[in-house]
Amino acid sequence: MMLRLVIIGFGNVGQEFARLLLSKREWLRNSRGLIVEVVAVATRTRGSLLLENGLDLERALQELRSRGTLRGYGPEVTDLPPLELIERCEADIMVELTTLNIESGEPALSHVRTALETGVSVVTANKGPVAYAYDDLKALADAHGVHFRFEGTVLDGAPVFSLVERTLPGCNVLGISGVLNSTSNFVLTEMARGRSMDEAVKEAQRRGFAEADPSLDIDGWDAAAKITALANVLMGARSTPRQVDRTGIRGITNESVKAALAESKKIKLVARAERVGGSVRTVVRPELVEPVSPFWTVDGTSSALTLCTDLMGELTIIEANPSLLQTAYAIFSDMLLVAEAVRRGAS
Amino acid sequence: MMLRLVIIGFGNVGQEFARLLLSKREWLRNSRGLIVEVVAVATRTRGSLLLENGLDLERALQELRSRGTLRGYGPEVTDLPPLELIERCEADIMVELTTLNIESGEPALSHVRTALETGVSVVTANKGPVAYAYDDLKALADAHGVHFRFEGTVLDGAPVFSLVERTLPGCNVLGISGVLNSTSNFVLTEMARGRSMDEAVKEAQRRGFAEADPSLDIDGWDAAAKITALANVLMGARSTPRQVDRTGIRGITNESVKAALAESKKIKLVARAERVGGSVRTVVRPELVEPVSPFWTVDGTSSALTLCTDLMGELTIIEANPSLLQTAYAIFSDMLLVAEAVRRGAS
Repeated sequence: MMLRLVIIGFGNVGQEFARLLLSKREWLRNSRGLIVEVVAVATRTRGSLLLENGLDLERALQELRSRGTLRGYGPEVTDLPPLELIERCEADIMVELTTLNIESGEPALSHVRTALETGVSVVTANKGPVAYAYDDLKALADAHGVHFRFEGTVLDGAPVFSLVERTLPGCNVLGISGVLNSTSNFVLTEMARGRSMDEAVKEAQRRGFAEADPSLDIDGWDAAAKITALANVLMGARSTPRQVDRTGIRGITNESVKAALAESKKIKLVARAERVGGSVRTVVRPELVEPVSPFWTVDGTSSALTLCTDLMGELTIIEANPSLLQTAYAIFSDMLLVAEAVRRGAS
Repeated sequence: MMLRLVIIGFGNVGQEFARLLLSKREWLRNSRGLIVEVVAVATRTRGSLLLENGLDLERALQELRSRGTLRGYGPEVTDLPPLELIERCEADIMVELTTLNIESGEPALSHVRTALETGVSVVTANKGPVAYAYDDLKALADAHGVHFRFEGTVLDGAPVFSLVERTLPGCNVLGISGVLNSTSNFVLTEMARGRSMDEAVKEAQRRGFAEADPSLDIDGWDAAAKITALANVLMGARSTPRQVDRTGIRGITNESVKAALAESKKIKLVARAERVGGSVRTVVRPELVEPVSPFWTVDGTSSALTLCTDLMGELTIIEANPSLLQTAYAIFSDMLLVAEAVRRGAS
């Protein structure tokens, strides 16, 4: 079986995914009977490529590494904007990895919509589409007989959506809580070690997991988008990140972190979704976490999620200090699940 | 789709599963298109039933509750031994829930073998078969085009085997560690609160999760069977519980628990599987757990498992203080996964 991919957004995650694809090429063919070709790549400022028979991934990575752009790749360089690229490249799966505008969900939302309408399945690590328009996009995917997967939006490649969908049949999610934002968790962990918030943020930037503008993390927007995605998919919330009762960690001082520790507590940015009456209430705020909580040991860039369910009680999944590979694996595993579903003819 | 079950062993877990089936009858029909009938039940000392068109589960539960035996159920009472019952009842799935002989894996092993050879899929919470003969039984299931599932053997219904099989495609398990035995974890937690081991064991018996003879838990046999099951299925170990380097908690004193706490450590019975050269080494022993470990918060009857993988790093799943329902759910979810696979015609 041949699988044709278009990758929209080819930054750190996209390139790590490409390396993973290359390293798993043999395994894909021998164990899964899959030949995966990337037929198009779009970047915002570093050129785009369209190759009917698939591009040489190794060479594309090399171009980016050595020249910082894809424009030297050859005559396959194109000026087509992403939406047209998606419509014209005849891919089976669009991999969406652009940078998110948290206040609109764009441009990812348009990319995903266009792909699904064109009959192309979507795999994304982008929180925007699922946080802003999950119900619509799922309906669109169903109507076109294609798939919409987004494991990488929360806890990287650690199974969260797949966990509920594929391993907890008949189990209802009654509530969700989580330590979902790596940067703020790292910053709070460093503050507990005596660093200032500024120093900790700079260290997170130096290590490459915080953005140049860290406000999306510090002000709780990233966690808000994640808890919304979870609430929409696992609890039928029909919500957006703007509806989250959101408090970030900007107001946390070294003194408050120290005072908490003196009482054997840790301050963590916790996101919650719970049913209140007929709707789902979502909250992001700093909480005092005690040593009996499964979040107690979740320090640094680790993340954790607790599902409160009717039949399985409380289940917690912890992802320890992920690297880029874990996000790339989210795309990789979703791609395999799409391939499996396509092969079975399931929708 | 009609699903016919034979239940071998109808103690606490079997009865809880029956109650779950009853409560989910509507959901099974409406959401899954499944009608589930129990066509036979075998107990060791309380009578067995064989009913071609399915028994009245509510009445069977009532008989057990009021008279402590199934023998008053009616003319459908049978003296057929379990193996003959399995062969003759024309079930789709055998649910195996007998009491385990840890040194042989019997009688579960024979029940499972007979079912698979008769073309009946197997769902079990019994560690024996998968700890003693996973490879053989898997091959037998494949040869007969049926299914062999055993989620309930480790962490009750929390997804462990399903997690790897269904949500971590292409990911290799490099090592496993876990706090897998509820009773010993509860005992150690109580000892940290000042109770003696004897008192704690009695409390565990009073609450119903420790056996009259607690030595399987205290001496690490239960954890050994579980880590063997995990190593066999997830790491291809071809091992048995007898090969585990096993030390239980019998030698742990209140003094040693206190001394550990004084250094901010907790003693926990930890099971491990790791690759050493070409084989898999399995160990069960008390370990000093530090506050940075995900096992730190796993107290009382909670359990936890950490998978060390190549593509997803370290993933931990924690099950908080399970009740019987969580074990019953293991059977229920495996039954649904078998039904899904049968419907798809997959093997």
